[in-house]
Amino acid sequence: MPRYKMTIEYDGRPYAGWQRQADAPSVQQAIEEAIEKISNGKQVRLFGSGRTDAGVHALGQVAHVDIDRDMDGEKFRGAVNYHLGQAPISILHAEQVSAEFHARFDAVKRHYTYRIRNRIAPLTFEKGLVWHVKEQLNADMMHEAAQLLVGQHDFTTFRHVNCQAKSPVKTVDYLNVERRGEEILIHAGARSFLHHQIRSFTGTLKLVGAGQWTPDDVQAALEARDRTALGFNAPPDGLYFTRIEFE
Amino acid sequence: MPRYKMTIEYDGRPYAGWQRQADAPSVQQAIEEAIEKISNGKQVRLFGSGRTDAGVHALGQVAHVDIDRDMDGEKFRGAVNYHLGQAPISILHAEQVSAEFHARFDAVKRHYTYRIRNRIAPLTFEKGLVWHVKEQLNADMMHEAAQLLVGQHDFTTFRHVNCQAKSPVKTVDYLNVERRGEEILIHAGARSFLHHQIRSFTGTLKLVGAGQWTPDDVQAALEARDRTALGFNAPPDGLYFTRIEFE
Repeated sequence: MPRYKMTIEYDGRPYAGWQRQADAPSVQQAIEEAIEKISNGKQVRLFGSGRTDAGVHALGQVAHVDIDRDMDGEKFRGAVNYHLGQAPISILHAEQVSAEFHARFDAVKRHYTYRIRNRIAPLTFEKGLVWHVKEQLNADMMHEAAQLLVGQHDFTTFRHVNCQAKSPVKTVDYLNVERRGEEILIHAGARSFLHHQIRSFTGTLKLVGAGQWTPDDVQAALEARDRTALGFNAPPDGLYFTRIEFE
Repeated sequence: MPRYKMTIEYDGRPYAGWQRQADAPSVQQAIEEAIEKISNGKQVRLFGSGRTDAGVHALGQVAHVDIDRDMDGEKFRGAVNYHLGQAPISILHAEQVSAEFHARFDAVKRHYTYRIRNRIAPLTFEKGLVWHVKEQLNADMMHEAAQLLVGQHDFTTFRHVNCQAKSPVKTVDYLNVERRGEEILIHAGARSFLHHQIRSFTGTLKLVGAGQWTPDDVQAALEARDRTALGFNAPPDGLYFTRIEFE
């Protein structure tokens, strides 16, 4: 059966997350149902490179699926997008790939960006698409503190209690904070992340940006290896799964 | 009575436009009702620098209002935003100004930007916030044709039949087209514009970008001074009132 690789953009607001759930709408289910309209009625299973949480967005999620139809990538993309209808999910790119390709296991680097809108005035266009922080944040201080979290560490403090990863030790390749006008962007890259790791980083760095925590407090929280030492967990609103690199 | 000047951002999607209407929600009405919560019950009247159409957005609309309460701009802004509640309207800035100031009559230059999302894949985050054009557009050709519309001309072709301006002659200060990734931005500035002028420009330039019209066709349409010579009127979705300059 031909295998198709897709690059996917979605607005996470109406979904309970990427992963299919029995009782709530998921991105995976929406796409699987669209693909089943072109799979001669056969059930399909989608494998994504990462499982985004409820309310988290993607600009470049990657997934693969096998269906019993041979078509070129462009036609596959058009057909799936057609059947997605008004869902805020868009297949940006699709191509046939070898049956060896696996969207989850072959991914060697995952990139995320977290968007904070840093202003006093209420949000208009981007409710649920950014984290609205009213206190003036110092992006340089946030960037400085972020460097303490780069590299290989035991990230127990920055891990959701339900995280299913075998080990809390991960290697963060980069964690950069920059200001662009009234927006603060936090860019993170790693082979893989723990559950809630970037949101935990973001919540903690926000405390630094607002002057409530020092970089030393971040160091102490990391070394505590204790979830209760976490400063703050940021909401899903501002988190975007932007890009995945493969072997 | 103190006069307050406000800079306002709004998402035009849920509104029938800026101007108050008897039978449909407007931005003006939403803000007036919020201000009436702090005006000791007295009715107020808001004067905007421009009347955006249904579905058109603003990043920097300006308006003034008189109310029988003396408060500093920051407090006024906070109170109005509070009473706007969940409406996608945000007072970005407010200050007390002289009773001579008039948001409409003192405005000497109005700036707009029109956003086209130029890609095949369906929209996710920005439905109603950009015009989705699937045909590949040539922004350089659009920019070249746009220069024919700069300067003082009789813009009858680019004017809605219901336009209430006394004369169809206007002076366009600039009309620049640029590509940024998959977005095409059209920036326009003038002392004032005719009704639907920028949307008419945009629809026409899109025909040039798609190769259906040449710059000569644009010139001919302008010289026709005839609404029926218009190539196409773009939807309101991508239009943003960005900034106003005062004397």
